[in-house]
This record gives sequence, C-alpha cells and structure tokens, in this order.
Amino acid sequence: MMTYDVVTFGEAMVRLSSPDYRRLEQTPTLDVSAGGAELNVAASVARLGLASAWVSRLPTNPLGRMIANKGREFGVDVGHVIWVDDERAGLYFIEHGAAPRATQVIYDRKESAFAGIRPGMVDWGALLSRARLLHVGGITPALSASAAQTQREAMIAARAAGCLVSYDLNYRAALWSLEEARAAQLPLMEFVDILVTSLPDQPEVTELISGESGADPAGVARRLAERFGFRAALVTMRGTPSVWRTTWTSLAWVAGEVFTDRRYEIEAVDRIGGGDACVAGFLVGYLEGDPGRGVRLGNAMSALKQTSPTDWPWPTRSEAEALIADGGTRLVR
Amino acid sequence: MMTYDVVTFGEAMVRLSSPDYRRLEQTPTLDVSAGGAELNVAASVARLGLASAWVSRLPTNPLGRMIANKGREFGVDVGHVIWVDDERAGLYFIEHGAAPRATQVIYDRKESAFAGIRPGMVDWGALLSRARLLHVGGITPALSASAAQTQREAMIAARAAGCLVSYDLNYRAALWSLEEARAAQLPLMEFVDILVTSLPDQPEVTELISGESGADPAGVARRLAERFGFRAALVTMRGTPSVWRTTWTSLAWVAGEVFTDRRYEIEAVDRIGGGDACVAGFLVGYLEGDPGRGVRLGNAMSALKQTSPTDWPWPTRSEAEALIADGGTRLVR
Amino acid sequence: MMTYDVVTFGEAMVRLSSPDYRRLEQTPTLDVSAGGAELNVAASVARLGLASAWVSRLPTNPLGRMIANKGREFGVDVGHVIWVDDERAGLYFIEHGAAPRATQVIYDRKESAFAGIRPGMVDWGALLSRARLLHVGGITPALSASAAQTQREAMIAARAAGCLVSYDLNYRAALWSLEEARAAQLPLMEFVDILVTSLPDQPEVTELISGESGADPAGVARRLAERFGFRAALVTMRGTPSVWRTTWTSLAWVAGEVFTDRRYEIEAVDRIGGGDACVAGFLVGYLEGDPGRGVRLGNAMSALKQTSPTDWPWPTRSEAEALIADGGTRLVR
Amino acid sequence: MMTYDVVTFGEAMVRLSSPDYRRLEQTPTLDVSAGGAELNVAASVARLGLASAWVSRLPTNPLGRMIANKGREFGVDVGHVIWVDDERAGLYFIEHGAAPRATQVIYDRKESAFAGIRPGMVDWGALLSRARLLHVGGITPALSASAAQTQREAMIAARAAGCLVSYDLNYRAALWSLEEARAAQLPLMEFVDILVTSLPDQPEVTELISGESGADPAGVARRLAERFGFRAALVTMRGTPSVWRTTWTSLAWVAGEVFTDRRYEIEAVDRIGGGDACVAGFLVGYLEGDPGRGVRLGNAMSALKQTSPTDWPWPTRSEAEALIADGGTRLVR
Amino acid sequence: MMTYDVVTFGEAMVRLSSPDYRRLEQTPTLDVSAGGAELNVAASVARLGLASAWVSRLPTNPLGRMIANKGREFGVDVGHVIWVDDERAGLYFIEHGAAPRATQVIYDRKESAFAGIRPGMVDWGALLSRARLLHVGGITPALSASAAQTQREAMIAARAAGCLVSYDLNYRAALWSLEEARAAQLPLMEFVDILVTSLPDQPEVTELISGESGADPAGVARRLAERFGFRAALVTMRGTPSVWRTTWTSLAWVAGEVFTDRRYEIEAVDRIGGGDACVAGFLVGYLEGDPGRGVRLGNAMSALKQTSPTDWPWPTRSEAEALIADGGTRLVR
Amino acid sequence: MMTYDVVTFGEAMVRLSSPDYRRLEQTPTLDVSAGGAELNVAASVARLGLASAWVSRLPTNPLGRMIANKGREFGVDVGHVIWVDDERAGLYFIEHGAAPRATQVIYDRKESAFAGIRPGMVDWGALLSRARLLHVGGITPALSASAAQTQREAMIAARAAGCLVSYDLNYRAALWSLEEARAAQLPLMEFVDILVTSLPDQPEVTELISGESGADPAGVARRLAERFGFRAALVTMRGTPSVWRTTWTSLAWVAGEVFTDRRYEIEAVDRIGGGDACVAGFLVGYLEGDPGRGVRLGNAMSALKQTSPTDWPWPTRSEAEALIADGGTRLVR
Repeated sequence: MMTYDVVTFGEAMVRLSSPDYRRLEQTPTLDVSAGGAELNVAASVARLGLASAWVSRLPTNPLGRMIANKGREFGVDVGHVIWVDDERAGLYFIEHGAAPRATQVIYDRKESAFAGIRPGMVDWGALLSRARLLHVGGITPALSASAAQTQREAMIAARAAGCLVSYDLNYRAALWSLEEARAAQLPLMEFVDILVTSLPDQPEVTELISGESGADPAGVARRLAERFGFRAALVTMRGTPSVWRTTWTSLAWVAGEVFTDRRYEIEAVDRIGGGDACVAGFLVGYLEGDPGRGVRLGNAMSALKQTSPTDWPWPTRSEAEALIADGGTRLVR
Repeated sequence: MMTYDVVTFGEAMVRLSSPDYRRLEQTPTLDVSAGGAELNVAASVARLGLASAWVSRLPTNPLGRMIANKGREFGVDVGHVIWVDDERAGLYFIEHGAAPRATQVIYDRKESAFAGIRPGMVDWGALLSRARLLHVGGITPALSASAAQTQREAMIAARAAGCLVSYDLNYRAALWSLEEARAAQLPLMEFVDILVTSLPDQPEVTELISGESGADPAGVARRLAERFGFRAALVTMRGTPSVWRTTWTSLAWVAGEVFTDRRYEIEAVDRIGGGDACVAGFLVGYLEGDPGRGVRLGNAMSALKQTSPTDWPWPTRSEAEALIADGGTRLVR
Repeated sequence: MMTYDVVTFGEAMVRLSSPDYRRLEQTPTLDVSAGGAELNVAASVARLGLASAWVSRLPTNPLGRMIANKGREFGVDVGHVIWVDDERAGLYFIEHGAAPRATQVIYDRKESAFAGIRPGMVDWGALLSRARLLHVGGITPALSASAAQTQREAMIAARAAGCLVSYDLNYRAALWSLEEARAAQLPLMEFVDILVTSLPDQPEVTELISGESGADPAGVARRLAERFGFRAALVTMRGTPSVWRTTWTSLAWVAGEVFTDRRYEIEAVDRIGGGDACVAGFLVGYLEGDPGRGVRLGNAMSALKQTSPTDWPWPTRSEAEALIADGGTRLVR
Repeated sequence: MMTYDVVTFGEAMVRLSSPDYRRLEQTPTLDVSAGGAELNVAASVARLGLASAWVSRLPTNPLGRMIANKGREFGVDVGHVIWVDDERAGLYFIEHGAAPRATQVIYDRKESAFAGIRPGMVDWGALLSRARLLHVGGITPALSASAAQTQREAMIAARAAGCLVSYDLNYRAALWSLEEARAAQLPLMEFVDILVTSLPDQPEVTELISGESGADPAGVARRLAERFGFRAALVTMRGTPSVWRTTWTSLAWVAGEVFTDRRYEIEAVDRIGGGDACVAGFLVGYLEGDPGRGVRLGNAMSALKQTSPTDWPWPTRSEAEALIADGGTRLVR
Repeated sequence: MMTYDVVTFGEAMVRLSSPDYRRLEQTPTLDVSAGGAELNVAASVARLGLASAWVSRLPTNPLGRMIANKGREFGVDVGHVIWVDDERAGLYFIEHGAAPRATQVIYDRKESAFAGIRPGMVDWGALLSRARLLHVGGITPALSASAAQTQREAMIAARAAGCLVSYDLNYRAALWSLEEARAAQLPLMEFVDILVTSLPDQPEVTELISGESGADPAGVARRLAERFGFRAALVTMRGTPSVWRTTWTSLAWVAGEVFTDRRYEIEAVDRIGGGDACVAGFLVGYLEGDPGRGVRLGNAMSALKQTSPTDWPWPTRSEAEALIADGGTRLVR
Repeated sequence: MMTYDVVTFGEAMVRLSSPDYRRLEQTPTLDVSAGGAELNVAASVARLGLASAWVSRLPTNPLGRMIANKGREFGVDVGHVIWVDDERAGLYFIEHGAAPRATQVIYDRKESAFAGIRPGMVDWGALLSRARLLHVGGITPALSASAAQTQREAMIAARAAGCLVSYDLNYRAALWSLEEARAAQLPLMEFVDILVTSLPDQPEVTELISGESGADPAGVARRLAERFGFRAALVTMRGTPSVWRTTWTSLAWVAGEVFTDRRYEIEAVDRIGGGDACVAGFLVGYLEGDPGRGVRLGNAMSALKQTSPTDWPWPTRSEAEALIADGGTRLVR
C-alpha cells in the first residue's frame, strides 16, 4: 500500500507552444508537452525526492495517455487518475513573448474530461488517509461547478483524515472574474493550512480575499495567516523588467516567523510553471521540518525551472542546492 | 460586387499532425495546418482558376485567424466568414500510419464556433444569387442541430436563387451512426443537383441512402441519380493495397452518360483531402461544361494532392493537365 | 470593381534565413518566407483593416507563386501582379546577429522578374483612379532603369488620378551609392505627398536629399516638408544598444504640426520589416484623418512586429492598440 | 510491497538515431531516445497491463536519468536500478537504411555503468520472491564477465524463488563470436523455462545451441524444448523483402502444442525493438494462461511497434487486439 | 606539388530541397547542401581513395564559401577555384516526388559566377600536366558561351598534356534544346577518351550524337566508341517503376570488351547524384586498370548513394565492396 | 611536400548539444558537430589564411570520419591522423544555460581512440621539420598516460626541429585535480615558447604553475614569461555578467612588451571554442610578426565566434578586421 507525502488534485492539459518566438498565427509547428499547476507541483515534489500522487480525470485517447505518461516520467503516481471514454483533454496554446509583447496563453479547456469530474468519483478518504498533504488551488473551482464541489469534497476529507491542505490562489483572469473568484474561494479558506499567493502578479485576488494591498509582502503573509488561521503562508514575487529578464523570490510566514531569501535574476526561457516549482520546494522543506530551507529550495527550483522549456521541473535537488550555496554562471566542464 | 463559381459551407479545423510516422502519444512536435472538407474544395476550385468563397464561423483568436489566412492564401474568399469572440476553433489530430497500422484521425471539434452557427446568421439569398454552385456535405449535419438547420437553409436558398447544389455524403463514423446519417440526410436529397459518394470507403452510407451495394460503381451512380433526380453523381474509388500505396479513380454519371478514367497508383504521403480535390476537379469541369474533363481533372488533382503533406491542394492546373496527358515519374530538370 | 485605400509597388523576394543564429556558411536548413518593403507595407495596411493591393512582377514558378500566396494570406490583393514565364524570383538571405556581430542580409535579386518590369506593363491610370494612396520608395529605382521608369510612371499617374503618393527613401547601400540615390530620387520628390526617412540608420541619404544632418528629427521633418512641399514627413528612429536590444520611435510633421510618441524598448527577434510596419501604421492613421494616431499605431506595430520572426506584420490592430494603452510585459492568460 | 508479473534485467542505452535516412556521417541532428532489449520487454509488458520492473545499473547524470525516466514513462518500475557516480551510460547510434543499404547500428557501450554490475549488488532473492517471471537474455553475458555472473546469479535465484525464467538468445555479432556465445550460454540453459530464438536472423546461434538448422521452425522449437527441458520455446521469424518492407510472424511450442499465427506485411518505420515487443506479448499471454493468445498478441505488438520510430512499444493492447481481429489499413476517423 | 588522378571542371550550386515531400510552394524550411555534377564526381573519386581536384568559379560570399567547404569536406582539392567579388552563386531547388508526381528540379543559375568564367582564367596546361584524367560534361556548354569555350580550352589542353578526357553528356532539357546540345557537343567529341551517356533517361541526346536508338545498350556503347574513336563508353541505365522505387545498372565498352553488372533494386531516398557516383566509380576502376571493377564499383556507389539525402556520395569504398560481394538488407549490429 | 605554419595535436570529439536551452534530460534531439581545443585552433588558423594540420587518433567508423571531415571542411590538413579499427570516438554533451543556470558540459571520452595514442605512433621529426609552430595544451596529458607521453615526445621533437611550441593550460576540472595538473605540466614548461592561460576562469591553475594570483593580468603574463623563459604569454579574460551576456578581451606579453585591446560585450550564443579562436588569432599575428595585431585578431575572432553555434570559427578574417576597425551592430544590407 503506497503512502504519499503530497497528493495533488487538478487538471493537466496538453501544452502546445510555438517555437522560436513565432506567433501562434504563423507557426508551422508546435512543441508538445503537458502541464497543469497541480501536476507540476507533484512532479517537483517527486523530483525533490518525496512521494507524490496526482488525481485527475483524463480521456482514454493518445492525448490523455500522453499527459499521464509525462507525469509518470517524473515519478508521479498517476494510478488514481480516472479514465473516461469519448471525452476530450484540455489544451493550452502558448506563444512566448519578447518585450514589449507579453507571453500569451490561450486556454482550450472547456468541456474537458476534468471539468466533468464530480463528487463521489474519487475515494478521498481512503487515499488521503495515506497522505501527509493535499495540494489544491484556485484554478479548479473556475473550471466547472462539479470540479469545484469535488475539490471541496477533497479538502473536507483531508481535514477529516488529518492530512494537511495547501491552497494556491493561482488566479486566472481568462477563466473567471475577481468577484467570482472571491465568492468561490472565501468559503474554502477554513479548510486550508498553507496558503500560497502571488505578488504583484495577483494583488487583486489577494486583496479581495484578504483586504491586503500587496505593498508589504511579509505583512500580507502575516495578516493572511492571522485572519484565516493558516499554519503557513507563502508569498511569491516575480519581477518582469522585460520579458526575457525576470526576477524571482518568495517569502513565507510560518507560525509567527518570516523566512526570506535572495532575489534571483533570471534569463527566462519559459516562466510557466515557475510558481509551481516554488510551491513544491516550499512544501518539501515544510514537510521536512525546515520552512526556511523550503523557501530557499522553492526559489532555487523556480529560478532554475524558468531556464528551460516546458512547464516541467528539470532541475535536480542537487542542482538547486548548489545554486543556493553558490549560484555562479561560469561554464561547468 | 464579387461573383463566385462555387460557394462552400462547412467547418474547417486546425490540423495537428505528428511528423515522421510518430504516434500522437510520443511526438514532441506537431505540424500545424488547417483543413476541412468544404474549405479544401473551395481551395482546389480557386487553384484550378475559378472563383470560390467559403462560408463558416470562426473564433477571433490566433487559431481562427490562422484558418482563414490559409484559405485566403489559396485565393478563397473568406469575407463571408462569421467571427465570434470567446469560442473555440475545432481541432483535429492525425497520425500517419504504416501497414498494418492505419492512419488515424482524432477529432476535437465539439462545442466549436462552427457548431454554434444558426439559421439567420448568413444572408444566403444575397450571397447565392451571385454564385453558380453551392457545395455542402454530410459532415455539417453531424456537428450540431443548428449547423444542420443552417445547411438546410442554405440548400433551400440555393434552389430559390437558381444556384446548383452539390452534396458530398462524406460519412464520418466518429461523428454519428449510419442510422443518424441516413435520417438526417435523406430529406436533403431533394435539394441536391450533384451527389458525391465514395466506394469502397463508404459503401454503408451509400447503401443506406440508396439501397446500393457498391459492387458496380457505374450502376450505383446511375441508380442514385435516377432515384433522387440528380443531374450528376460522382463516385470516388480509393484502393488501399497498403498504407503507403493507394490507388485512386472516380467515375461520374451525368445526364445519362458515364465518364470513367484511368486508375492512379499513388505513393501516398497524405491521403487526407484527396477526395475533396477530386470533387473540386469534377465541379470545375462540370461548370466548364465538360464533365469528362471534370472526372479526369478530379482524379489527377486527387492523385497529385496525396503526394504532399497537409489537406491542401498544392498541384497546379497545369500539373494536373500534364499528368492527364502523360504521367511519367522521370525526374523533371 | 474593387477600390483600395493603399496600393503599393515594388519587389518582393523569397526570404531565406538561417535559424538559431547560425551563420549562412554553416546552416543545414533555411527558413523560408517572403518579403519586400512595399509588400510588407501592404500587408500591414490590410492587417490594420484597410484595403490594399500590391503591384509587382513575378515568375510563374513555385517561388513566384509562394510570394503571391503569402501576400494573399495577409489579405493583400495580388490580382494586379504581372506573371512571366522563364524568369527568376529575387531572393534574399539573412543571418541574424548577436553583438558584436550585426545581422547581415545578402541580396540575390539581379535579373529578377521584377527588374524586368517596364513602363506600359501596368495600367496605372485605371488602377490608381480606384485608390486613395500609392506607396513607393527608394529601393525600386536602384533595381533597374526600367523599374525606375515604371515607378516614375506610376507616381505621375497617381498625381493625375488625384491619388496621394507616399515615398520611403529606404536607402540600401548594397544596391547603389549615395550619389546614385540622390541623382535618381531628387527629381521624384515633386510627385511626393508624404515622405518617409530614417534616422540614424540613413542620415546620409536624408542629408543628401535635404541638406539635413539628422541631429534634430523634428526639424529635419519640418524642413524636408517645407523644402519639397510635402503634406507630411515621417521620421523613424531606431536605436541599437545591442543586436538583441533595440529601441524604436518615430515622429511626423503633418501640415505644420509635429506628432511624437514614446520610445519602445524591444527584445528584437527580427527587426526586418519594422520600418515598413511603422510606415503602414502611419498611413492608416493619416488616411483615417488622425496623424497622431498614425504615429502611435506605426510605432506600436513596428515594436510588436520586431518580436516575431519574418518580415510579416503578425500583430493585430487590437494588440497594437492595447500596447499603446498599456504595454506591460506580464503574462497574458 | 509491490509485486511484479515480470522482472527484466539488462542494459539500456541512450539511443541516437539520424533522421530522414541520413547517414551518421552526414547528419546535423540526432533523435534521442533510450532502448535496450530487456527494458523494451518490460515496457511492453506494462503497456499490455501487467506489472513489470527493470533492474539495471545507471550513472547519476542526465543521460542515466533520462533512460530511467523513459522506462517510468511506460509504467516500468525502475526503483531497483542501481545508481553510480562517475561512470558512463552506454550509447548506440543507428542509421536507418533503404535497399540495398541495410539499417546499421553502432554500439558504444564499452565500460558502461551496466558492464560494471557485479554479483551481490542486487538482492535477487528478495526481489524475485515477489515476481512471477524473470526475463533475461544473450546480450548481457556478452557485455562483461561480471555482468554475465550477475545474470547467472539472478537466474539461479529465480529458480530458488519459484520464479519462471525466460531467455532470449538475441545474438549480437558486434559483441562476441558464435563460439563465445555458445560457450557462455549453454551452461545457462538448465535454468531456463522459456527460450526465445530468431529465425532466420540468428540461425547460427540457434544451430550452435541446438544443432538445429532453422528450416523447420516448429521442429526447431519442439526439439529445443525437448533437448533442454523448456516449458516453452518461442521462435520469431522476420522476413526482409526490402528494407522498408518486412514481414513478421512467430510460433511457440508450449507443453507439446505448437501455436502459429498469420504473417504480417509491414511498412517498417523502425524495426528495432520488434522482437522485444513480440516476446513481451507472448509472455503476457503465457502468464495469463493462454499461449495462443500470447503468440497472436506478440506478433500484433511487434508488427505495430515497427510502424513508429524508436524502440518503444507505443501500440496499446486494444490496438493489438483490434489488429488481431481485423487488420485493415483504411483510415480511421 | 600535388598530383591528381582526376580533375573535374564545372559548376556547383547551392542546393535547396524541401523536406518531407513538401512542395516548394508550401515548405516553411529548406534543407541546404551543395551539388553539381562535376563536383559530385570529384567527391566520389576522393571518397574511393584517389586524389581529385575541382576547378570552378565562385563568389566570395557565404554561399560561395559553403560550396567550396563542402567539396573540401569530402577531400576534394578546391585550391584551383577562382574567386570573384560581387557575383552570385548558382542555386537549385528540388522537391522530391511520390508517384505519380515526379521529383522536380528548378534551376536558378543564370548569371552565376561560373557562367562568367572565360578562357585564360585557368592555367590548364600547368594543372593538367599533373593530372591523369580530366572529367567534364554536357552541362557546362549550356551555361554560357564563355563557359563552353573554357571547357573546350581545357579539353584541348588535356590532350596536349597527355591527360585523358572523360565526358558525360548529361543532357538538361531546362538549359537548352537537343539541337543546341548537338551542335555544341559534336565538335568536342574528338577530344574525348571516355564517353558517358544515359539510357533511357537521355535516349534523345544519345541518338542525336550517335544516331543510336537506345534499345541495345551494349550496341550503343560499342557503336558510339567506334564512331568517335573513344577508348571507353559507359552507358548508365535507370529504371523508375515508381518514384520511391528505382533500379540502377550500367555497362561499359572498353577496348572491344563489354562489362555488365547486376541491376540494383533501390528504395530511392534521393536519386540526384546517382549518375555522378556511377561515373566516379567507373573512372576509379578504369584508372586502377580494371574496368569491370569500375562498372561494379560505379553501380554499387550509385545504388548506395541514392539511399541517403543530398547529392553527396556518403558510401565508403568498403561499403560498396561489401555490397558487391553480398548486398543483403538484414540489419547490421 | 606540404609545409605548415601551425601543427596542433590533441583530441577532438563528437559534440552533441541540446537545442533551445533544453536540458539534456529532456531533449528529443541533439545537434551534432565536432570539437576539441587543438582542432579548433587549427581550424581558426586555416580560416585566417595560414596553413595548418591537426594530428590525432580516430576510429574508422562514421563518427571518426565525421570529425576528420569537419576539420577538412575548414581547410585543416587531417592527413596525419592515425586511424584505428574497433575503438571509440570521444563524445561530449552540452546543454546551454541561462542565468542562474550555467552552461554544462558532460564529457564521455574515456577509453577513446585518442587516449590510446602512444609514443612512436607519429613521426614527429619528419612532420615538425616542415612546421613553424606546434600547438598543444593541458587537456591531452589529462586524458591518459600514453597521451601525455606522446605530447611530451612531440614537444621535444619540436624543439629539436627548431619549431616553436605554444601551450594552452586549458584546465578541465572534470578530468583531473589541480595537483595532478601541476605535477604533469610543470616539467613541460621548459619546452614551451608561448604560454596561454585564462583569467579569471582558471586562476587556480595559473596560480599553481606560477604562484600568480590573477589580479594583475599584465603582471601575470610578464612574471610567467620571466620565470619560465617564454617568448610570449597570452592571458585571456572572460567576464560573465550573465550567461547570455559575456565579455572578452586578452593581452599578451611579448619580449618585454605588453599588448592590450578593447573589451568586447558579447551576446553569447555559444561560448565554447571562444578561447581557441583567440589563441589562433594571436598565433597568426605572432607568426606574421605583429603580436599586437595578433591580440586584436584573437579577440575579434573570439568575440565573433561566440555569436554562432558550435565550436567552429565561422568568422572570416575580413569580418574580424572590420570588427577591429569599427564594430557597429547596425544591420548590414
């Protein structure tokens, strides 16, 4: 009987990206990968050496199988995925930007197999009794009412099973409005142990949930935690001086203490999934009993992840630790 | 005020194909193109020198624009396309086969912008009064009830405007059953002037509509025409001795006369769209008053089309005519 | 009978560029596109929603057809192109640079089909009586004597038809000397309504024509306009702090008023065609009666165009307008 | 505690293949994958729905991790792989042929991490007590003396644990001579339950081991089984009318009964791994108690496998079963 | 002071081919190589172990340098190439066919640097006094009058220097008519020692020169040799049952004896350069004193050459000899 | 009898690099090239117009031939390479970095054909009596004891033949420790005329050999030369503000005089081989009697080399001289 450090729940999609800064309208080829916030987190957790599983719903066609294969490639247990005939895999298209043109994502995930998930399909009690932490977030409730209900079901089951719950607000303007996001998520906060939010990417949603303005990240983390009774709050901070140059850091409030870290200067090859790698690093450190290490691990994983294509977290734990220790850009040979 | 020889109506999709005989489940890249039976026909008609327009419904995003751009690249008038925000473009995925593995197409076209087309959206009367022929077919009524109604609306408007109607049965097992196909299409036959069907690919649907068994193509064409009062019936015939080697020919019954042609031996690079190129060639010859030339033009266009990738009809009219006249495979330099 | 907002005249070539910063001498593949200043302008005009046509001369072979297809893909009317057998399409090769190596273009356009164009081949009177503006420039007279004469013929016909003439000096050192450029173009200035010149890329040619030194762009524009009696003068200004980082702005003098705009910081993927996009944006604003909008539209189109490969103007008008309004580099999803 | 239907043991290598029939000496790119007979078998077993693990030894660098990742992608348990610093991954290069040029493989596997495996490194007793069948073969003993000893150790442990042993002779002329192959393998036959050999690819080695000439495959299978006391013998038969056209079938002798199957005509995209897919299919059927189904499943998996690139078995079980039932080459859509 | 077994003279071009059976009109990329009949011959000669040089005229730009580099890569001495500023390299475009569409070559070689070569530019006397054989052919005199004169100058100098002359008729219909070919080449025959012609590709030109009909290759060779006093005549014979399947053989008449060889069945990846490889193989055997070996070597080199992309002769001499000895299509590993 | 300006000796490997900033663990393709410090130097020397040869040992397989072909493509004489059957070519894998991830090289060169070279295999006396300078360095003695002995043999033979010796310390931490490097190389210094070292990449090794700290490059050069009696010392200096932005300069001490140069700001596409290009430029200037020109030529070649992929020195001498004279980044057309 497998046990898991982290179980995540959410949609992963086929990812279709145009190479060489081509616009989607012009590209003769697309690069194929898979991605989705919660699968990305599970992959980073496994990459860092802990046991993870990802729960989702996929169609029994080559696209659905491909998504699961890729998760498995990273060591994520996909044995709890629910398979369904005659439905579709969600897709997303991405064209990478260059200043002053921002990177753009087009979702094509309506009516996906995942959106059709419903309470009762997953035996959360059995699964989460074997897990230390459940990770979910703010994308799933935006996808369908039944997906929102299933996520709530999972969170309640986690609490019942003594399994921690982490929640990444992860606001997507393409999916719903701030008002909808607020209405759907405020009632969930009572089941959350660890909250993740982004500044300044998502000050609006943070503000809506917390009344916080975003100017003081450590204060935001503290006040969020205090207001909702979280055990921990992670605030990620991306800077975008241009499209190809970004910066990354995060801080965490954990049980009254604030953990900060250096800010990385990044030559950004692919920023998608950077936040998920950071969340995973933090969760790993937290579960290992060292939140400060979690913040450093998260930031290093995030910075390194953004230097190679796709959502996937290709850095190894030893690379992340070497970067934390040093961080030079001299050739290694 | 533009006039058109041929107006077509139907859905075109983003076409995503895996290169180098890769399975969809394994491919790191996809080749991007666009395609759809009725757009393919319009493109071949334009390629052969007649004026064509294509009517459809597309989303105002890069994928929708790309589909229209590609039609325009071939000289098809896409000015009558209806544009809509916040909907999706239909997609199809293709993996090319090798014996004993057949080429496989996966449609992802549910809830597409085209499926949302409704009667009243297109001013058929105004458009078809400027056209000699409307080409539609058996895919559209399988996509949605409102698309089926819109196609019927167009066919009735064509008849009223004195515009010919051609109809390709084009049965797709992935979209509906034979029974559904029969029920939906039999009532349309009264508005059809030129019918297209395939043997042996689609003997079932031909049989359902006509009671014909497929063993005698010329007889099938004649009896179909006589039963429904068609002006013409085109029967296309593909043979598949293997996946990489196919054969192609077609014959037509026109006003009591049967026109046959040689059978082409094809090294098949991409068979998708081969039927559409044949239909277009026949319609061009028919509209030029020479149905025999239409059959020959259709078969040559189809054979040549199948020797290069994508749905699109890249052969020129002069290449088709040279093949009809000779057909050698010696190097040209 | 079609009418046009903008008709352009000039050569377009097959564009062959080496990918991934490879030198031409080393590359195993070339990316294929098409481009030419005046076709680029026509494409941007169509992209921005006005009607454009492009007049040229092309060979009836796959390369010639490809060039026309690509123009058509953008909505440019290529029905006035003159087709000729047994001649060649102009080509250009490009290798993208990286500091301290500049991007380099090698032309292979001698004896092209376009260079063989001669007065009398185009019925300018008929065409330009249906057009609001003719756009030509300083490349064409450098290609052949007969091309120069044909351009002059067109400019005179435009004036006669009450059609505006815009002229981009567009100096190419690979094609002729400054002295030749001056001698050929000064006599054309009397037929010009709108002049386009570049600082500091082409201060020499501006100086030769105008006696202007380039240090004061607004003054240059004003004095050029006053000396030659132009209705408007557009001065484009590119800065090249490195090869991958460029800046772009332009200003216009129109009927005594100077219109300026912000300077864009660009992560340059492909700077070729940036000037043409700017010209087109200006002409569109000018024809819409708002030269200030034209300057802003031109700069935004130029900045965005430079962030994706090929000469072609893939930004949409709504993207350009969003950039004018905001311009952030945060991810869009 | 995981249990396994099949455990395999052997080397897998980085696979580097030149695309588009390029010779290795000319190719500017190589396609990267991984492969090795016993990993291939484990992957097919997992693909067919049974639980498999693969035991090997890999370096802790990106190449070693990549090999394990790919196994995991297929669902193979790679948790028993032994990791080692500062050693190398085996490689193999492949150039695909075209008649009259044969496909050619170049091994670069000397001094690999796997060749350094030694008895005592794997706890075979613990592992094989949880397994139904151990699959090994004739490549491993050719790689190093210590690898040969380790394989012998595993076979003895299997017998002790009541775990079946299957053995694929898999002769590689590049690795050793027939005499060496015979001397090394004859003593192993006493631990073998199921033997696999190839005709006519490897009649020499079959002959050396069995005294059999290869002219009568069913007889070969029977006499091999009788001489060595095997429970089963599988004889695979590939025909190569050209390089792009191959044929495949196999037969098995099981407990006195011979199971034969149809011969597949294959348009061969990549024949590497075809034999391994066949072995896996047979083992699955055998373990499911239906050797006849095993033969059919093996042949169908092999035929389908050879129609797509890389060693990997991308066909699904349902595709294999559909091919067994029908096998047409008509387009699926 | 270098000495050469074979010196060749002619044009080589940049070769631009569309991949994956794409039509030139559709391809987004082109593969880049170089090729030209006489450079191809020199490359094969070097590949087979004899010393060769190639004389030509190239522009001092990346394209010209690339052509010379590629010759050097094969070991051809390009030190006698004449370099010139401000001229162009010849180009040719190729799209590979599939039945019933033939492979098509488009030349763009007018006004090339080579066409500008003139008598007096090369010191033939000095060069050919160090060479055993000069190889030229029927393409050069079709390129320009001065190139024709330069070739004649070289042939006369060869005779004066006691250097053999081989001449490949190599008729190109795109360059000149049969009448022109005949008029230009008949007067050259008196300087020829070894003639090469093709049946059935070029029966017309053979007929024009020889009065021969092509039905009896050995007779053609004999009668050509007798009429013109050649020392040897090589007749190459390609069959094209389809585009992807070709056959190849050749025979030679040498001093009264006829040497024949097996006919190869070829899965043709790229037939361009197949004839040149055959010529080179024959010349090598002839110069080694064994014309029969020359015929076999030429046919094997040609057959193998046609199985990989580009004009270049990648087979090695040992591969050719292994094919002559055996020729199986079984995997080599 | 050929004479050489520069003969180099060392290993060259197959170079396999992942494109598009992909990690080695994720890449589906690798770009193939060849490289090795001493072959790179020979290539740059030839590119700059002097005669060079490269001595090494390679396997007679496609990989070995490819390495030699590429050297020949640059005009390097590879006729002195020793060929051996049944051994392996060294390989190296490279993944290009992006801040904060450094570019990483993985060597796979153990047991290579070159490592098996032994004294007596090369007739150094005969070869170096025809050469002006022998270039060797600090990688070779790290590869095997016999390679170290062969290099020492060559250096002694050079001195005996009156041939200059240059030596690049070129420390590779992946191959040996600083202590090993020092012990192996100090005894060689007596045979060195020109020493090359790097600051700050390799201050450690410089320090070990010289006791120098690296803070004062000109002083380091002077004191190194004085201590060991070198005729010249070249100190190269790379700065790495990020991974994509590097700087480059070098200085030389020659016979008491110090030659410095500008520092180049580089948008680094591929920094591998930058040092070798610099060394070659310096040697060319030195051999031409102008060490100051050598320093400038070396820096310009290095800066330009780093702007295109692969180790190879694609800049031409005229490009390097134009950069020395000017260095603008404006488009060239």
